[in-house]
Amino acid sequence: VETEEKSFSDTAWLDRLVVVLVATRNPLNIGAAARAMSNFGITHLRVVNPYDVAFREARSAVGAAELLARAEEYQSVSEAVEDCSLVVGTTGIGHREPQHPLYVLAEGAARIRGHLETGNVALLFGSEKRGLSNEDLAHCNWLIHIPTRPEHYSMNLGQAVAICLYELIRESRRAPIASSSEPAASAGDYERISTILIEALDSSGYIQSQQQAVMEEDIRRLVRRLQLSDGDAKTWLGIFRKMVWKLRSESHS
Amino acid sequence: VETEEKSFSDTAWLDRLVVVLVATRNPLNIGAAARAMSNFGITHLRVVNPYDVAFREARSAVGAAELLARAEEYQSVSEAVEDCSLVVGTTGIGHREPQHPLYVLAEGAARIRGHLETGNVALLFGSEKRGLSNEDLAHCNWLIHIPTRPEHYSMNLGQAVAICLYELIRESRRAPIASSSEPAASAGDYERISTILIEALDSSGYIQSQQQAVMEEDIRRLVRRLQLSDGDAKTWLGIFRKMVWKLRSESHS
Repeated sequence: VETEEKSFSDTAWLDRLVVVLVATRNPLNIGAAARAMSNFGITHLRVVNPYDVAFREARSAVGAAELLARAEEYQSVSEAVEDCSLVVGTTGIGHREPQHPLYVLAEGAARIRGHLETGNVALLFGSEKRGLSNEDLAHCNWLIHIPTRPEHYSMNLGQAVAICLYELIRESRRAPIASSSEPAASAGDYERISTILIEALDSSGYIQSQQQAVMEEDIRRLVRRLQLSDGDAKTWLGIFRKMVWKLRSESHS
Repeated sequence: VETEEKSFSDTAWLDRLVVVLVATRNPLNIGAAARAMSNFGITHLRVVNPYDVAFREARSAVGAAELLARAEEYQSVSEAVEDCSLVVGTTGIGHREPQHPLYVLAEGAARIRGHLETGNVALLFGSEKRGLSNEDLAHCNWLIHIPTRPEHYSMNLGQAVAICLYELIRESRRAPIASSSEPAASAGDYERISTILIEALDSSGYIQSQQQAVMEEDIRRLVRRLQLSDGDAKTWLGIFRKMVWKLRSESHS
């Protein structure tokens, strides 16, 4: 099992990925793409003929100003993908008869990861309104699409970039985080909680004497169904002890 | 191999998912969340105390105007998740010592899909600046996080929503994880148990007045960590009610 540290330090393959935004209209979307790239550790951004040359100041690139400042600007897709041995276009499904092989994102990302082991890959995103043009597509080896509803396949550009990059890094980060490493409560803890709870219920009149044995068994089972950590078991024990102490002291006052 | 059409027409489970945006500052982010929801076929959006009441006109909700118009507004998280039997919070990693189990998105999404077979699930997203507050987190059964770089874990809200929803629908062609057949307790059940338990602890002198607020939050979290079935939740509620009744009747006798 890989640790999170290992998967994040082993980023040589991510360094061979290039995100190419073609004819993007809204500079905020370039900023959003840059932010998602930074979130996932992808550094190479190239823009082809953006509508707004002031894109480098895009506010939405929170935390990704440096990445945006280093973005490379190109006049054509062919120049932007020159050093890449695989060029993958992104497309919404259904708005165009694909001339290219088309893979659903999960499958396409697996192929991209395979290629990144040895060569550079360009991932192309078209403009917000029209997507990639037929001319842009001519540079692509194949296409991927995000599995949206057919009735609403048009995604926000920044969200589409984020999802594609997430899918690419997803497999390398599967190792679950050790979080609930807290030890579980012992059988003895459950027994002590049951005993004190039965005492509290006895004092409260919840348990009627004629059904005492059955009730006690039910209570023990109820407590055993709790999936407590060691720490929480101690807290519940303290809570019930306090209640019993109070219930008894008042009965005898 | 199932077809894409089938997976999207079989959407009963998606209908049990509720996206809850808490204290969102930028209405454009609510719009972006709505758009991603529409892309992936999720319809139930709830907002808790958004900063801008004009959020329903958010421009970024391209193609999702209807969804946005039907969004429900709430004054508190507890009201917004009342009918949900699983409440999952989203968090960036590293900015807070988790009091809850924390799963990486892929694993958490598998658990959510399993739960959606039988019960409603609320997926909570906090504000852009601060994420979910400790008070919000007290309503959560557990947390998920998107596996970003530790050095830049803060994601754009609209992108985070899109990635979480993508991960949820991504595996929809695979058989969901079998969940236990007994329905789980709802958020409302946990809330009622917490309230009556706090009353009992108050009457027992377990809670000192100067630390009341902190204690109450701790108690709510302690109760939320119990993984109760619907039936067991009702039993515990009866148990604590009886104790409170007894503790009070004796205090006044």
